[in-house]
Amino acid sequence: MAAPLCGPHPRLSVFSATPPALRGLSRPSLKGITSLVTRPVKIAPSLLAADFARLGEEVAAIDAAGADWLHLDIMDGHFVPNISYGPAVLKALRGRTRMPFDVHLMIAPVDAFLPAFAEAGADRISLHAEAGPHLHRSLQSIRALGRSPGVVLNPATPAAVVAPVLDMVELILVMTVNPGFGGQSFIHSQLPKIAELRRMIDATGREIALEVDGGVTAETAPLCIEAGADVLVAGTAVFGKPDYAAAIAALRGGLA
Amino acid sequence: MAAPLCGPHPRLSVFSATPPALRGLSRPSLKGITSLVTRPVKIAPSLLAADFARLGEEVAAIDAAGADWLHLDIMDGHFVPNISYGPAVLKALRGRTRMPFDVHLMIAPVDAFLPAFAEAGADRISLHAEAGPHLHRSLQSIRALGRSPGVVLNPATPAAVVAPVLDMVELILVMTVNPGFGGQSFIHSQLPKIAELRRMIDATGREIALEVDGGVTAETAPLCIEAGADVLVAGTAVFGKPDYAAAIAALRGGLA
Amino acid sequence: MAAPLCGPHPRLSVFSATPPALRGLSRPSLKGITSLVTRPVKIAPSLLAADFARLGEEVAAIDAAGADWLHLDIMDGHFVPNISYGPAVLKALRGRTRMPFDVHLMIAPVDAFLPAFAEAGADRISLHAEAGPHLHRSLQSIRALGRSPGVVLNPATPAAVVAPVLDMVELILVMTVNPGFGGQSFIHSQLPKIAELRRMIDATGREIALEVDGGVTAETAPLCIEAGADVLVAGTAVFGKPDYAAAIAALRGGLA
Amino acid sequence: MAAPLCGPHPRLSVFSATPPALRGLSRPSLKGITSLVTRPVKIAPSLLAADFARLGEEVAAIDAAGADWLHLDIMDGHFVPNISYGPAVLKALRGRTRMPFDVHLMIAPVDAFLPAFAEAGADRISLHAEAGPHLHRSLQSIRALGRSPGVVLNPATPAAVVAPVLDMVELILVMTVNPGFGGQSFIHSQLPKIAELRRMIDATGREIALEVDGGVTAETAPLCIEAGADVLVAGTAVFGKPDYAAAIAALRGGLA
Amino acid sequence: MAAPLCGPHPRLSVFSATPPALRGLSRPSLKGITSLVTRPVKIAPSLLAADFARLGEEVAAIDAAGADWLHLDIMDGHFVPNISYGPAVLKALRGRTRMPFDVHLMIAPVDAFLPAFAEAGADRISLHAEAGPHLHRSLQSIRALGRSPGVVLNPATPAAVVAPVLDMVELILVMTVNPGFGGQSFIHSQLPKIAELRRMIDATGREIALEVDGGVTAETAPLCIEAGADVLVAGTAVFGKPDYAAAIAALRGGLA
Amino acid sequence: MAAPLCGPHPRLSVFSATPPALRGLSRPSLKGITSLVTRPVKIAPSLLAADFARLGEEVAAIDAAGADWLHLDIMDGHFVPNISYGPAVLKALRGRTRMPFDVHLMIAPVDAFLPAFAEAGADRISLHAEAGPHLHRSLQSIRALGRSPGVVLNPATPAAVVAPVLDMVELILVMTVNPGFGGQSFIHSQLPKIAELRRMIDATGREIALEVDGGVTAETAPLCIEAGADVLVAGTAVFGKPDYAAAIAALRGGLA
Repeated sequence: MAAPLCGPHPRLSVFSATPPALRGLSRPSLKGITSLVTRPVKIAPSLLAADFARLGEEVAAIDAAGADWLHLDIMDGHFVPNISYGPAVLKALRGRTRMPFDVHLMIAPVDAFLPAFAEAGADRISLHAEAGPHLHRSLQSIRALGRSPGVVLNPATPAAVVAPVLDMVELILVMTVNPGFGGQSFIHSQLPKIAELRRMIDATGREIALEVDGGVTAETAPLCIEAGADVLVAGTAVFGKPDYAAAIAALRGGLA
Repeated sequence: MAAPLCGPHPRLSVFSATPPALRGLSRPSLKGITSLVTRPVKIAPSLLAADFARLGEEVAAIDAAGADWLHLDIMDGHFVPNISYGPAVLKALRGRTRMPFDVHLMIAPVDAFLPAFAEAGADRISLHAEAGPHLHRSLQSIRALGRSPGVVLNPATPAAVVAPVLDMVELILVMTVNPGFGGQSFIHSQLPKIAELRRMIDATGREIALEVDGGVTAETAPLCIEAGADVLVAGTAVFGKPDYAAAIAALRGGLA
Repeated sequence: MAAPLCGPHPRLSVFSATPPALRGLSRPSLKGITSLVTRPVKIAPSLLAADFARLGEEVAAIDAAGADWLHLDIMDGHFVPNISYGPAVLKALRGRTRMPFDVHLMIAPVDAFLPAFAEAGADRISLHAEAGPHLHRSLQSIRALGRSPGVVLNPATPAAVVAPVLDMVELILVMTVNPGFGGQSFIHSQLPKIAELRRMIDATGREIALEVDGGVTAETAPLCIEAGADVLVAGTAVFGKPDYAAAIAALRGGLA
Repeated sequence: MAAPLCGPHPRLSVFSATPPALRGLSRPSLKGITSLVTRPVKIAPSLLAADFARLGEEVAAIDAAGADWLHLDIMDGHFVPNISYGPAVLKALRGRTRMPFDVHLMIAPVDAFLPAFAEAGADRISLHAEAGPHLHRSLQSIRALGRSPGVVLNPATPAAVVAPVLDMVELILVMTVNPGFGGQSFIHSQLPKIAELRRMIDATGREIALEVDGGVTAETAPLCIEAGADVLVAGTAVFGKPDYAAAIAALRGGLA
Repeated sequence: MAAPLCGPHPRLSVFSATPPALRGLSRPSLKGITSLVTRPVKIAPSLLAADFARLGEEVAAIDAAGADWLHLDIMDGHFVPNISYGPAVLKALRGRTRMPFDVHLMIAPVDAFLPAFAEAGADRISLHAEAGPHLHRSLQSIRALGRSPGVVLNPATPAAVVAPVLDMVELILVMTVNPGFGGQSFIHSQLPKIAELRRMIDATGREIALEVDGGVTAETAPLCIEAGADVLVAGTAVFGKPDYAAAIAALRGGLA
Repeated sequence: MAAPLCGPHPRLSVFSATPPALRGLSRPSLKGITSLVTRPVKIAPSLLAADFARLGEEVAAIDAAGADWLHLDIMDGHFVPNISYGPAVLKALRGRTRMPFDVHLMIAPVDAFLPAFAEAGADRISLHAEAGPHLHRSLQSIRALGRSPGVVLNPATPAAVVAPVLDMVELILVMTVNPGFGGQSFIHSQLPKIAELRRMIDATGREIALEVDGGVTAETAPLCIEAGADVLVAGTAVFGKPDYAAAIAALRGGLA
């Protein structure tokens, strides 16, 4: 799968593959994103799909299998309709892997919780743009805690909302499912948003990771990469497979 | 009234009629919306203005008078500062008319109520873009319930917010008053937004109704139609008149 | 004491009929409630069970059938998980009956809505003790609006919470179902609470109506009356019957 | 430790041991709770203190060590200022132990989450009396889901609030710390409340477990048992010890 | 002022003066509160009634006039429908008086604000019993900050709710108006509650101030003192008078 | 284009001075804002930085020192994490100055408070665009109260959100710190937003003040003015200086 991605044709095919629902959407231009072809893709398995009875082993296994980051989905049952887990899980796992902890806070309000996640071992902390009126302040707080700030966009949120905080973030996460549960299907209408964010990022000249979360599989991963993503979160597409290394390689678009 | 609408002059007159408050607003170009001239206009009387002591008769009367849809304004006293009525009213009226039930939910959060309205007889269910961070999920839920999803914009909400869900909706409702009460005056500054949404809809190539609600009268209806609307909600402009058929015809821009 | 009520047997049977769940509950003494024997019982049919397509006719019908009060259940979808109807319904019905409007607000917060219900025709306005920290202020507001204030207790709320506002209310409503929906079964564990409230009321020497709402039928009505209630709300037990007058009489414990 | 507990003297000593802060509190009479001496005490280790990297092993270990129930503290970051874990953890552990799952929901509102916890393997589900105005309805829902309902009291909540739901619950949990975090000190002022609840329970003649959670150690456990508790939740007092069986036995007041 | 209060007659006259609204309320026995007669009464003028243009002078003036404490009413516009002022006002005044700062927080939730008020100069910090489910934790926090904790009761809140935190507080404040605004009339139905709290306090053997706030004037002050209060908050009854010393003396029941 | 503004150097220096964080941000064109050169700059000292012990004197002093408006920061502890002061402070100061009261409401929801601030003496009332879904309605209410409406943007909020209410406002306030506390550092990334709003305002042809609040000092004021601001809020940069007149003059860019 990797090979065709490098050429110009697959890119077009991305949009030929765009499902009927997207037809008629104003298609973002792909001009200016050719550099993405050589961008290395990071895989961030989401702990949400791991076996909660033996998280330590699971984390060690994906670490050994070549995962780049550990993605941690924190849900409070209020911002999203599910409760996942909190800082205590991070603390228990921090000593068991060299992978950076990529924490995705699906909680609101977030400010009071930032120190707890920073202390528990978070390297990156990302917040939803929809989670409150003071996004900029929360990003400042993450920086003040010495962690790397990110912003997350729900499927219904336009890319433009990140513009005022582009100088504050080192990661933008595009949700390709509605957050709250694992195992949902990839929302293809988010591909133009990924491409738009890629252009916005490239225009800054700064290093900002462009991450995708939701329904990422060996089939949808190339669409994301093509559109400009460089970090892919995967839950069941890794933890639901017998061979984690093969699964991770498949998402990267290469062979196991 | 219909005749002048077909020619180029009335269109200009729309904006000559634009009140002083609008002067200086960046005027959206009307290019690309000429096809709207032949678009048939639907009238959706709002039950809010009917006599609540005899809703069955009222509904039968507007049905007989040629109304296209029955518009149902659901208010929870939290998202808007008024409580109107709930699913039981839909259920009581469902057997009394062939008109589709066009349900406008002025409630937040909405997700828990969607099944009740679907079961009570809603054909279309529209949600406010401002009503929560998970608009896309709610639209998915409406589809999963087999109903037709729509999105509603308050007067202060830019047209651009619907872009990420354009592929999910079959109706966009532009509020031309602030929701909560009947009998308010039409907010003319919404006309450019209607025109902008018309262009966005036409660009999709999909069928998406463009509905206007608030202060719609025989005087303001042509402005809405000209700007691109194809469904007009009317409360007192129908139920406040002695002859419902004449009132509906007047809104359509024709003769009774 | 049993005899004057309705024969000795029913009283005993009240508590013989008490379900096993109640066994072991500290049984409130019935001492001091002998005066209730001659108390006339009012029936307040709840509009929630009427046909919403022809509320005017329904209200006229129960009026003619001898109902004492019209009970209006206002639900906001937040304090309770259902939306019923709001002030516009009161306004539409106000001219169609001589019955007092007995408004039960299942909404929170309530203060901002009190003027609307007072203006729409409410005679009595009752609030949930659980609906906010400022119950006393809300009761003051109802008085200031010239309406008769009442307090409502959910099934899990002890009778003692009304003590500090006993001097402020003219009605206490005991919920014998959890509020939000019609057609639920009577919660027998509320009978001792009704008896306790009867004693509290009698000790004041003031006129305070003791109303019961939820699952009231010809079978449960005598239990409520025996325990001390003097106003019974009934939904399907009236509107679900072919003969409203007979249904109302049955609830009163007499013949049609 | 167990021996002295069986005699009459230690009971007195419980209250001799009562710290100065409690002096002057109206001391609840101990009349009627003599039967508690022979009541077998259950130990419910709280998963919150386990190693989250290997929950499966931890659960198996306490099961083997003689624990009676597995206590699961669910925190949503809103009702309490911490997020612990959700249904997915229950699901992962359900197959690994024969112990009943004793779920303590520190979340509000609770109703929407009850089915998820029931399906995930909860046997008992307990709710805070302070978590909403509709406690009775939530208890009905737990019953309808086929699970055993319980009610939890915060340290500031009087025992009397459970009276109206005594017939609905099979467990009452007294918090002896303020909920949200492990490792806090036992609040001695809760002992009279435990004794008061014991008398209320005994008066019902029904089987209702009386559980204590917070700061339970080998030193405070006898106070709880003496006051009438029959289930003790313990976190660090079990998982923080090298020998789980010895720790559990110590809490029971006997030898390992 | 002591003289008339010391004899048996005035006490009776208190209740002869009880307005009609209170007739029928179960009158709390005054047995056991005879010791209150010699209790010195503290006057705590409320800054809310001072001239906000020259608070420094106002505070110096009441200090010189013999006021005991400075009462500070903090309102957030959410727990109560008014916004008063915050920590910055305390900080500005801290250096201008020797009076203890008696802070009454009419805010919810309170926990996040406790450190700010402690640092700004609060000596006592009192919280509403109705302001959240974790009253005990908040009182612990105030203690941990080295300040003196108190609990406040709204008019509709029964005295019994303070029982579980009696060992935690050094002050109980009874609201004799509904909080939010100055200048309201004294609610006489709170007198029995004051007397009940006096008995509860005396039974503890601990020093707990019993404060009254709302409508306290030279006419109502004796009623409060008689019922057992030993701290009186007064707003317009001090700051609305030309001679602060005379006003304070009048509240104490003596001569200027 | 630099020349007409105020000489080429300052303009370049504005953007030379732009910190590294801003590099890469799409720089808004300055075309169309040449008219701003002759725009007089108003200084609006923020009362938040004054001495709360003698506000009357402070206000008189800045009035005498040439301040144009008095800026009043209203914080409710909910929309922002601080409580400042409310309408009573306005009322106390209204008679002490001829300066217009420029009220910045950092509260949500706002509607219920608008009359109180209007009556207390507010001339201008500005609301956060992030404070609720009914911004347009709130602006209508301010107009109906006869006051001048404004809209405020948090640092993370794009300029585009004001477009739908441009015809409703007479002031746009750009926050250059996150609201809630005084003494924070100016956020340079807001300069392009100021410039963008200047162009939007100029395009309307209407008089709309463009105000900046947060970290405004003699160093940052010229950046704001250059970008298009014509009203500068200053707290410590005025009240923290010994000579208010000199401080105000320095902010205007002139000599003391």
